[in-house]
Amino acid sequence: MKFTRLYNLLCLSAALVSGSLWAENLLGPQTAPSRPKNIVIMVGDGMGPAYTSAYRYYQDNPSTQEIEQTVFDRLLVGNASTYPAPVSGYVTDSAAAATALATGVKTYNGAVSVDTNKRPVPTLLELAKKRGMSTGVTVTSQINHATPAAFLSHNESRRNYEALAESYLNTEADVMLGGGQRYFSDKLIEQFEAKGYQVIKDAALLDGVTQPKVMGLFADVQLPWAIDEPEARRLSTMTAKALDLLSQNDQGFVLLVEGSLIDWAGHNNDIATAMAEMHEFAGAIEVVEQYVRQHQDTLLVVTADHNTGGLSIGTHGDYRWDSQVLRQVNASPARIASQALSEDEWQSGVSGALGFTPSGEEFSALDSARMQGEKVLTSQLKKLIDQRSNTGWTTGGHTGVDVQVFAAGPASSLFAGHQDNTDIAHKLISLLPKPAKAKPANAKPANAKPVSAKPVSAKPASVLPAEPETIESPKTEAPETAPLEAEEKAETTAQDIAAMNTSAQADVEAQAAELSEKMQSTASEPDAEEAFRQASDLLSEGAESQSAAPVSEVDNQD
Amino acid sequence: MKFTRLYNLLCLSAALVSGSLWAENLLGPQTAPSRPKNIVIMVGDGMGPAYTSAYRYYQDNPSTQEIEQTVFDRLLVGNASTYPAPVSGYVTDSAAAATALATGVKTYNGAVSVDTNKRPVPTLLELAKKRGMSTGVTVTSQINHATPAAFLSHNESRRNYEALAESYLNTEADVMLGGGQRYFSDKLIEQFEAKGYQVIKDAALLDGVTQPKVMGLFADVQLPWAIDEPEARRLSTMTAKALDLLSQNDQGFVLLVEGSLIDWAGHNNDIATAMAEMHEFAGAIEVVEQYVRQHQDTLLVVTADHNTGGLSIGTHGDYRWDSQVLRQVNASPARIASQALSEDEWQSGVSGALGFTPSGEEFSALDSARMQGEKVLTSQLKKLIDQRSNTGWTTGGHTGVDVQVFAAGPASSLFAGHQDNTDIAHKLISLLPKPAKAKPANAKPANAKPVSAKPVSAKPASVLPAEPETIESPKTEAPETAPLEAEEKAETTAQDIAAMNTSAQADVEAQAAELSEKMQSTASEPDAEEAFRQASDLLSEGAESQSAAPVSEVDNQD
Repeated sequence: MKFTRLYNLLCLSAALVSGSLWAENLLGPQTAPSRPKNIVIMVGDGMGPAYTSAYRYYQDNPSTQEIEQTVFDRLLVGNASTYPAPVSGYVTDSAAAATALATGVKTYNGAVSVDTNKRPVPTLLELAKKRGMSTGVTVTSQINHATPAAFLSHNESRRNYEALAESYLNTEADVMLGGGQRYFSDKLIEQFEAKGYQVIKDAALLDGVTQPKVMGLFADVQLPWAIDEPEARRLSTMTAKALDLLSQNDQGFVLLVEGSLIDWAGHNNDIATAMAEMHEFAGAIEVVEQYVRQHQDTLLVVTADHNTGGLSIGTHGDYRWDSQVLRQVNASPARIASQALSEDEWQSGVSGALGFTPSGEEFSALDSARMQGEKVLTSQLKKLIDQRSNTGWTTGGHTGVDVQVFAAGPASSLFAGHQDNTDIAHKLISLLPKPAKAKPANAKPANAKPVSAKPVSAKPASVLPAEPETIESPKTEAPETAPLEAEEKAETTAQDIAAMNTSAQADVEAQAAELSEKMQSTASEPDAEEAFRQASDLLSEGAESQSAAPVSEVDNQD
Repeated sequence: MKFTRLYNLLCLSAALVSGSLWAENLLGPQTAPSRPKNIVIMVGDGMGPAYTSAYRYYQDNPSTQEIEQTVFDRLLVGNASTYPAPVSGYVTDSAAAATALATGVKTYNGAVSVDTNKRPVPTLLELAKKRGMSTGVTVTSQINHATPAAFLSHNESRRNYEALAESYLNTEADVMLGGGQRYFSDKLIEQFEAKGYQVIKDAALLDGVTQPKVMGLFADVQLPWAIDEPEARRLSTMTAKALDLLSQNDQGFVLLVEGSLIDWAGHNNDIATAMAEMHEFAGAIEVVEQYVRQHQDTLLVVTADHNTGGLSIGTHGDYRWDSQVLRQVNASPARIASQALSEDEWQSGVSGALGFTPSGEEFSALDSARMQGEKVLTSQLKKLIDQRSNTGWTTGGHTGVDVQVFAAGPASSLFAGHQDNTDIAHKLISLLPKPAKAKPANAKPANAKPVSAKPVSAKPASVLPAEPETIESPKTEAPETAPLEAEEKAETTAQDIAAMNTSAQADVEAQAAELSEKMQSTASEPDAEEAFRQASDLLSEGAESQSAAPVSEVDNQD
């Protein structure tokens, strides 16, 4: 309804007019500019409100009476709804949510920055690049996973990992750090190198990198669980390096940081691993928080894409959550199980890794599970930790609860109160500098392989819906994800952006024009499929069609 | 740790210094005073973040593309942590949470505005009354249930319903509306009438009430489920009347409004009933929101005391939540079951009440449950609604996730961002007018029965812990609730209040003095029990000792 949209805009205008910004007050005197030069958006994948609350109690120092605040408590400014386009109901997957955060457009579950008609929509990082800014992503999943992909590229399906990896050739992103060696062949890496990228596969080499462009692929797929390598602080390290490299551009930068594996642990209903991933993400936020304190021209916005697992702090009628149990677990259940299967005298190793000695009954259940193999033993270990800590779960998938929004730096007050996840993108995009006229910011090097503009796919059926495949979760029917009409939505979005606020008016108008121009630019070949004729007309760059990548055992996080 | 406390105070100071208030901007021009004359605090009992998100989708108009905003979306400003005193772990019950909201003091689960040493601590409503303001409570539970009791009175245990009812004689509260006839004997009602109260038991008579004081007891215990009487809008009606009556005091008022039965439905894991209670509560908020628009000297703060049931929007790996199912249910499962047991041809009645016709398999399960009686049939109906809507739960009790905070009106920006539930009380108390010197605001009428000041109880073991007794939830061990040292906490609180902000400095100092005075006032008889010597010294009014009330079947909501 129009009223609600108008109300949103009223709120936004009021906040913009208001010169006194809440979150800015927290980080320094009023010398910060009202508009940021740099933007860091951080996404805790799957990090619903129960995760940040649980993390506070996980971090609580039991030797003090006080319950210590976390970085989330310091920075909280609002909440955000996460529902996808109507065709996918009220519960989003990571791809649709990341598309919303990166572009401001609601789409179907599984979509990577394409709308419900599978037309690509411009992303925050693409627009930033066009304005002469540097861009980067640092994540703990493979760098071509749903969230970073939606900030960098376009595809009808998040499952098309190879196509997404190849499409990154055309992003001109300055820093891409995470996992994903599997998806980047030697030949593809050569192409990246030909474009000027330094490609490294050993995290120890990161220290020696002194300038962009750099692509770091530090694992076959995702990075190791933080709980198994707590000293590595990989996300913090990668984020600090990204800030260092991106800062070299006087025209500013936009950086996406994702705590990707919070979601993966949530899908697995693995609370000890999830809390360690929260700690990893919190550490990275603190790195950026410190950067923002020292660079008052930098805006930090942190949110989640959705809630995973239906995590519950306390369950089964018992008013208890024993975070002490979780603090003592010093390896992932998967690793504990793997180790236990390699030893005859496995009990002491399990006790050591769990941080407590299971009872006779508990050991008996573990023994029985061990005889059924690693997966069953892993499940039983998680169940034991859940029982000891009194942790509850409702699903191996996602839930529709609103997520939280955290912010610091210039214009951070824009993110106060309730908003939709698309509003976050609209606000961030409105804060980008004005487009430079007639500046070929993305001119391709001569030796770059041209990417032909094709429709995203000729196989509508290959759009894979959100379907978690976790160890314990029951398999369920996939929700419908057939493309539906969303033009109305897209139009509303453009109107909203244009009306957003007076101080950003000129910028926003230019942006709306750019968006419109992009939507109408045509460089496509004709396509036989009726359903994709319009989409093919509108596709302008970098979203090459490929058949769906094989669904691997690690490809189960939505 | 001191840092976190200091940080809180810094935030608060920054917000107070900042003249431009976010939420104020939404409700009118900057003509509103910076300090409210009237305060309305509204508590959605058990209303964790999943409830407000779910309510949005429950309210969504399926005939529009847009998802309509709710009153919660309009008013959201922050979040709050809810953990009780360390002795009760991280998961609070309603009594400890209401004590935190009413007094700013963390206590053990089960405590009604007494600290962990069972010493009474002054409440927002008591302090307001002393400043010459009017006070009131309107709730959908019995008026002597945990939440309203913690705002009005003191007791070592929420279960002491008769003692709490009798203690209300000394509250001087101007408006008390809700249920609870069972706890107010004819003799006790006579005493209230002797104190000048108009006591009514028929909601239809409320319309004729034109001035305080009034006590309305409209049900034996709690009011009927909203889903069974959707046109009644009882909480809205009671709240509008309370505002009308309390407004008669030129010195302002403080009103507590509680959507009590959201929690009760949550304990029962009854999503259809819970959503109807959310609608009832949202309606009452809208009544106050409208009042705040028309009376810019009124502050509205809405929050929850905790989360109940571990509600999940989507479950079992299925990315779906079908709110349409819930909108069509037009009676509580308890009422549907009761009706079905009274009829031979029960199937059509059940279909009509559910709003859909169960499948053959579903009818078969209902038939089997029906043969086992009303409770089992009620459970089966809830299970069916959960399956159809894909709703998940983890507990018949509470969980420890942070709750949301909503606000409008003068000083509403104080409640932005993250805070603890005790901070909400500190902020509200700091906004009360300065104490009038030597003004006997609470002089008792000559015919009032004097209440002797006794220690709260001589039986420490009678402090009942939080222990939900819902139909399906497994019984579990009660958490420890023995009193522990909390002086340190109480001292910190007094210091915090004193340091809170410069504009409220004088007021706060007077208040700290008053609190200190109250703590040290002695009118007690000697007590034999060593553990209660200190507490007996400090008890000053109105918390008479009684043995625990019998735990009835309706006394199961924590």
